[in-house]
Amino acid sequence: MSEHASLRARVYWWLERPDREARGPRLLEIALILLITANVTAVILETVSTIYAVWQPAFDVFERISLTMFIIEYAARLWVVPENPQNRSRRAWVVTPSAIIDLLAILPALLVLLFPVDLRILRAFRIVRLLKLTRYSPALGMLLAVFEEEAGAFFAGFFILIVMLVLAASGAWLVEHQVQPDAFGSIPAAMWWAVATLTTVGYGDVTPVTIAGKIFGAIITVLGIGMAALPAGILASGLNDQLHRRRSSMQAEFRRALEDGFICDAEEVEIEDLRKSLGLSYRAALQIRSEVEAEVQARLHLCPSCGRSLSDQKETSA
Amino acid sequence: MSEHASLRARVYWWLERPDREARGPRLLEIALILLITANVTAVILETVSTIYAVWQPAFDVFERISLTMFIIEYAARLWVVPENPQNRSRRAWVVTPSAIIDLLAILPALLVLLFPVDLRILRAFRIVRLLKLTRYSPALGMLLAVFEEEAGAFFAGFFILIVMLVLAASGAWLVEHQVQPDAFGSIPAAMWWAVATLTTVGYGDVTPVTIAGKIFGAIITVLGIGMAALPAGILASGLNDQLHRRRSSMQAEFRRALEDGFICDAEEVEIEDLRKSLGLSYRAALQIRSEVEAEVQARLHLCPSCGRSLSDQKETSA
Amino acid sequence: MSEHASLRARVYWWLERPDREARGPRLLEIALILLITANVTAVILETVSTIYAVWQPAFDVFERISLTMFIIEYAARLWVVPENPQNRSRRAWVVTPSAIIDLLAILPALLVLLFPVDLRILRAFRIVRLLKLTRYSPALGMLLAVFEEEAGAFFAGFFILIVMLVLAASGAWLVEHQVQPDAFGSIPAAMWWAVATLTTVGYGDVTPVTIAGKIFGAIITVLGIGMAALPAGILASGLNDQLHRRRSSMQAEFRRALEDGFICDAEEVEIEDLRKSLGLSYRAALQIRSEVEAEVQARLHLCPSCGRSLSDQKETSA
Amino acid sequence: MSEHASLRARVYWWLERPDREARGPRLLEIALILLITANVTAVILETVSTIYAVWQPAFDVFERISLTMFIIEYAARLWVVPENPQNRSRRAWVVTPSAIIDLLAILPALLVLLFPVDLRILRAFRIVRLLKLTRYSPALGMLLAVFEEEAGAFFAGFFILIVMLVLAASGAWLVEHQVQPDAFGSIPAAMWWAVATLTTVGYGDVTPVTIAGKIFGAIITVLGIGMAALPAGILASGLNDQLHRRRSSMQAEFRRALEDGFICDAEEVEIEDLRKSLGLSYRAALQIRSEVEAEVQARLHLCPSCGRSLSDQKETSA
Repeated sequence: MSEHASLRARVYWWLERPDREARGPRLLEIALILLITANVTAVILETVSTIYAVWQPAFDVFERISLTMFIIEYAARLWVVPENPQNRSRRAWVVTPSAIIDLLAILPALLVLLFPVDLRILRAFRIVRLLKLTRYSPALGMLLAVFEEEAGAFFAGFFILIVMLVLAASGAWLVEHQVQPDAFGSIPAAMWWAVATLTTVGYGDVTPVTIAGKIFGAIITVLGIGMAALPAGILASGLNDQLHRRRSSMQAEFRRALEDGFICDAEEVEIEDLRKSLGLSYRAALQIRSEVEAEVQARLHLCPSCGRSLSDQKETSA
Repeated sequence: MSEHASLRARVYWWLERPDREARGPRLLEIALILLITANVTAVILETVSTIYAVWQPAFDVFERISLTMFIIEYAARLWVVPENPQNRSRRAWVVTPSAIIDLLAILPALLVLLFPVDLRILRAFRIVRLLKLTRYSPALGMLLAVFEEEAGAFFAGFFILIVMLVLAASGAWLVEHQVQPDAFGSIPAAMWWAVATLTTVGYGDVTPVTIAGKIFGAIITVLGIGMAALPAGILASGLNDQLHRRRSSMQAEFRRALEDGFICDAEEVEIEDLRKSLGLSYRAALQIRSEVEAEVQARLHLCPSCGRSLSDQKETSA
Repeated sequence: MSEHASLRARVYWWLERPDREARGPRLLEIALILLITANVTAVILETVSTIYAVWQPAFDVFERISLTMFIIEYAARLWVVPENPQNRSRRAWVVTPSAIIDLLAILPALLVLLFPVDLRILRAFRIVRLLKLTRYSPALGMLLAVFEEEAGAFFAGFFILIVMLVLAASGAWLVEHQVQPDAFGSIPAAMWWAVATLTTVGYGDVTPVTIAGKIFGAIITVLGIGMAALPAGILASGLNDQLHRRRSSMQAEFRRALEDGFICDAEEVEIEDLRKSLGLSYRAALQIRSEVEAEVQARLHLCPSCGRSLSDQKETSA
Repeated sequence: MSEHASLRARVYWWLERPDREARGPRLLEIALILLITANVTAVILETVSTIYAVWQPAFDVFERISLTMFIIEYAARLWVVPENPQNRSRRAWVVTPSAIIDLLAILPALLVLLFPVDLRILRAFRIVRLLKLTRYSPALGMLLAVFEEEAGAFFAGFFILIVMLVLAASGAWLVEHQVQPDAFGSIPAAMWWAVATLTTVGYGDVTPVTIAGKIFGAIITVLGIGMAALPAGILASGLNDQLHRRRSSMQAEFRRALEDGFICDAEEVEIEDLRKSLGLSYRAALQIRSEVEAEVQARLHLCPSCGRSLSDQKETSA
């Protein structure tokens, strides 16, 4: 970071950290994470009457301070947008997910300030500040990629779950509504039992009591558990697949680099960059490398066209 | 769609949408989906006495209208069958799953009309109209393919689950039937506890109370959870496999297209068609493509038979 | 089956069905499956007092008949052992899992006959006849192979589960034993809560009530669910792997058969045999085949050593 | 083990078993495993008042004996550290996980001896001796490797779970705190319900009762189950991947060994060593071997550069 850079460029560098190893931005990031965590903790503790009664002034001061900080942060991020080398407009930045979260984090508090009514509900809404932490978790990116990737299967899984829920609730209503008019008096009421059963939560506050109801409940439970676990299974297997494909990309990179038989320094740097961008661990990369090396050597030493070793062949052709 | 086409051909085009991008059929489809959703919602709300008491006339009118629509839809689909290029007979169409669902969606209401008794159970049966939505979810096809594919493992998983249920119920009956004659008085009665336990629903309305019962229950629970989760696991891993194989097909297609070193326009179209038919996302296809390209280049640049680069070799042979 | 075969050979053919498509043995098999199912159903229904009171004579007659059948079956299977081409001794056969199950299926009833006391417990033990059905489920073999394969990981998963259970029970006992001396009075007592919680069954008959107990319970639950699901996850991923490896075997077979560019009739038969022995579906085999064909063609048409198509090269060498 | 080895070398050999097949160390290991198991059982049974009242003297004697044993074991392991060929210092050994566990196993008992107050809590802490068993489970190493490998995805999964828990608790507090001030009076209180629901434990001691609460609860449950199952899914798919990569390493080793067409005795030994270190079953290794052999033969028999069989080519070149 040059000292002669404009103030805006400097703020950009501190806030958006293009240079991840720099010390200053790292400390600022940690400070912001601590502030968010403290804030969410405060929002949670405010709901405990005994604590709030005693510490109300402290909570109010802390809220005012952190609200100021979040407003400054939002303004600063909005101000430095043009410094981004990808040259997004401020308009485009405002509708990015993290910018929306940043806005939601200050909006309810601002409304409370403008219309000074003690809306406890609006205060509780400050809990969304928790989502500001998503900015700092790189692995979340992979999860979101999986969601996007498997959207089709995921939607199908949820669709099946909804169909199962409606059928389960309808069936339970049919067999139980006369005996338990409170819990199974209508399909929407029976839905509460269906959700608790098919997700295997099973509170037990509502259960079928008739023989027919128990038989129907048992059948729907046994059939349903496989269905209800589908979204989770799709997500997990998608993650597995994502990791697998990332490893394949790494493998392809090693193969390309090993074409000439060894990995030069420039190639090492490239490989390291790819490894980081794929979110692979150092150990995993090492294992992939040794596999590719073994594979390449096997190919080089034994000529696939004639079965002789490569060195012999070179002599012959010489 | 030519204007001179016969009426039947036009209706076929509107209903079965061979041309997926056309605007008219797309709107009709959305209208039908909305109608089905509204219908199912109505069936659900009718079971809430307070709502039904007030809105009964509206429900009846809506039911009559939508029943008419569904009958027209069924008749139209039956009528246009010969337009299908695969030339199925009407007889074959009637027994396809979606045709059966369409029939079930109108049958109970027709029966109520013919025999005008207010059979609430028959009314509730209209909930199967929900299944009409399955026609519009392409990803369901993949799930069904997985079911078919893994049928063997799936059946084995269910068989193990049944065996576990019977053994758990028998054991619980043995140790608990004297202390809790109501809940564990017979093996079928104990089955209710066994289902709730092995599926991890755990309502808690029935639990073992004796020391022996608790020890047996704990052991069967710990051993059983792995078993009960099997069908779900088989389904999820089958889905994973299915997705993996679809990616392999895509890879094979890219390899074939890249044989001559580049992908021509005709090949692009073919690849796009395959991508759609396999239900792969655009991003996934792109990643596969770059992997295959890297692989092909590695093969082209470094001759596997002699270790020299291809360009040198060409000079030699020239 | 030749008509001049010895009686023992004929009984062997009927019982062990070396020729799976023959009609007679198939019918006998179905009859045996129905007998076992009816028997287990009878054992279950006998425990329902109201049914047993009315139908006791019928149950007793049916039990006597089916016991005779099972004894004859056991004796016959023992008798025909020498007909098995693998030439196992009778001694070796007696200790095979399915022979032990067959023996357990008749032993308790025989004991009741010999010592004519009405031991209800011994009667209930006849439920093990259910396990006789395992003989007829080929897919179970794959599950058992997975168990054997992943035994190490499986054992590690169970070990972790046991450690978690003991630690959870100890912690819960520590924080709750003074407030709830009944449910958490000792570590073994607290184990009942620990099992219900970590397996996510959650009956709710016993829950922590103190603040410390709830905090500890919440932490152990969040940490524990990943652990408790491990055995199931290992099993499912092992199954996935097993299926994957079976597909690889199929692939290798196709590659071998396609070496000469086409699959002759003898090879078709071999492939079909392998497909059946691996338990793969016909559709899966077809997909693998088309992939291998594409791969082989790509290799044949484009010479990897010089980038020219194979046909040109042949002309050159001619 | 030479008879002239120093005492320290002999103790090292007995305790750390570099030679896994030797009988003596094997027996010592089993004795230690039994001692640990007996000890943990004793700690568990001590908490049962009726047992402790009768057997207190026996428990005390056993505790003193086993404590002495564990102290001797710890001292001996510390003493023999320099015999380790990897030449770790004693200082480095003391902070290894298993050394810390060994220390924790004797520390509380030592404290009780030094300050002779009957601290029941400190006695219960002896349960950590259970962790001494981790030393003897080789498969745990693989699980730990998976944890390390997937740390990023795992952390992301837990982060999502925490976010879901806070949002679920906040929402439930908002809609239920007026009706159920005890169970949902504050966000921390509502957290107990959120944990029980999102982990699908579902005790049922606390459930929403208002319509809004049930609707919110149902939505959060359906959305949440996929999230809560993520850590488990990541772990299981990571394990699958780990096993898969270990199989790939095995495959690479077979390919290297088969370069010259056959596996010599020295190579067999190397392969066996690798198989053991990877924790693969003998059967799995065999299957991999046959696949690699088929692949190598296919490559040798059919020359990929010209499509002719290798034997012909050799004649030509001769």
